[in-house]
Amino acid sequence: MACLRVGRQMLRQTASLVCPTTTTMMMMATKGEGFLGVCGGSLGGSQAYAPSCGVLERFGSSLLAPRREGRPFGSTKAETYDVGSSSNIKWHESPVTRDAREKQLNQRGCVLWMTGLSGSGKSTVAFTLEHMLQEEGKLCYVLDGDNVRHGLCQDLGFTAQCREENIRRMGEVANLMANAGIITVVSIISPFAKDRNKVRERMENKSDFHEVYMKIPVSVCEERDPKGLYKKARAGKIKGFTGIDAPYEAPENPEITLEVNDGNAAEMARELLDYLRSHKFLEY
Amino acid sequence: MACLRVGRQMLRQTASLVCPTTTTMMMMATKGEGFLGVCGGSLGGSQAYAPSCGVLERFGSSLLAPRREGRPFGSTKAETYDVGSSSNIKWHESPVTRDAREKQLNQRGCVLWMTGLSGSGKSTVAFTLEHMLQEEGKLCYVLDGDNVRHGLCQDLGFTAQCREENIRRMGEVANLMANAGIITVVSIISPFAKDRNKVRERMENKSDFHEVYMKIPVSVCEERDPKGLYKKARAGKIKGFTGIDAPYEAPENPEITLEVNDGNAAEMARELLDYLRSHKFLEY
Repeated sequence: MACLRVGRQMLRQTASLVCPTTTTMMMMATKGEGFLGVCGGSLGGSQAYAPSCGVLERFGSSLLAPRREGRPFGSTKAETYDVGSSSNIKWHESPVTRDAREKQLNQRGCVLWMTGLSGSGKSTVAFTLEHMLQEEGKLCYVLDGDNVRHGLCQDLGFTAQCREENIRRMGEVANLMANAGIITVVSIISPFAKDRNKVRERMENKSDFHEVYMKIPVSVCEERDPKGLYKKARAGKIKGFTGIDAPYEAPENPEITLEVNDGNAAEMARELLDYLRSHKFLEY
Repeated sequence: MACLRVGRQMLRQTASLVCPTTTTMMMMATKGEGFLGVCGGSLGGSQAYAPSCGVLERFGSSLLAPRREGRPFGSTKAETYDVGSSSNIKWHESPVTRDAREKQLNQRGCVLWMTGLSGSGKSTVAFTLEHMLQEEGKLCYVLDGDNVRHGLCQDLGFTAQCREENIRRMGEVANLMANAGIITVVSIISPFAKDRNKVRERMENKSDFHEVYMKIPVSVCEERDPKGLYKKARAGKIKGFTGIDAPYEAPENPEITLEVNDGNAAEMARELLDYLRSHKFLEY
């Protein structure tokens, strides 16, 4: 019994059902050094496993047994639980599920991944959307590629490998934030399809990732040149600049394409807002 | 005027006051391709700068001017804005402030950094606290050292350098999450004071970081040995194991010390909850 603690992945077996669950504090009874957590919300939706080991505890009319097959968030590598033995508890699943957070926030966590050329308006649209969401009482956070380079990615340069790692880390943080229930908007050039696709594959749920393609001719970006970077790239002061002497691979099947030439920032942000609403991300 | 866009750091000057602000969408008027954002919430609290350049726009009785000295979130390196020229806009500050998010969530973002030996109960207490907060309608997220190694830090090993980088990244993500308004609980051994202190220094506000020391004799952890790691370390199968053949530097001035021997997980989590409440993190 001592191994039954809050936060463990368990199976709950009733007369008609076996469902995965996590021990929580809903009812607690001190047992020795630890305490008994009794199962609360279900984990893993429709998944169910037959218990393959002994029952640990009774709760009402159900039995609690260790879960041998975990479905740990965001990981394909995590090892299964082995409650009762001491060797391989490597993954700590939170007793507060993503679903509970989303219910609390009355929204669904997700990632809008805004990709496009420098100067295409990614950040402007992202921050405008954030503001619109905030006015509707929704929790949004913008992960801006430039900003994150001052912090999490400050150790990275601009080599191909560094850019790849930069995008990987942005994806992982976005994944965590979506798991926290936040509508997460990532604004980063991310010129290569393979890097963007890797991020998509790493998401907890496939429906978490929404690629937003800021479609705009490079000539328009160069004309705008809000950071003066195109000028520097043309002058050879910046090497490997996307759209000038480095390729931009347009998304083949983006969830959303914003024709940047046709709209202003507010209109484009409104389009994203409508997308989120129609896809039920603004409600629980 | 075209360079006045949403999200720019600006100065707002009234008859009696100069205060930093960010252009938002509170009032919008389309101007050419962009649109005019008019200043909303103030940024940077009591800081104020005299404008050192021309006025861009009038808003009511105030003037809007470019802000030359930014105080960008979480960074000491970001360059100043230079609205109107095109060369060095490197930092995109969100028009939705942290303060606005905190108001929305009715809580204050912060980081509880739980440090202590393997088996000291960091994760158990963290997840228990998360549950208690959730029951009070507060948004909390646990960044667990083990879990993050499956994602954001999957490229890192266990050398001194890798551990340092692991902690740095956890700190940066915690910083972002606190900025998003979340009560962020980090559970990671983090044996070295210098690494923990670096994280503290990187926080947006000094009051964001709260070191929680899980105080427990190594002998008790070794007896518990929930993951069998002490056994492996004693057998020489794991090298550099904290508390066995690698040092653990106890915090000298932690904000909170939990005497792990004396309490169970629920009592310790309750202590953290009381701390958060008395320090006004559970209200706006």
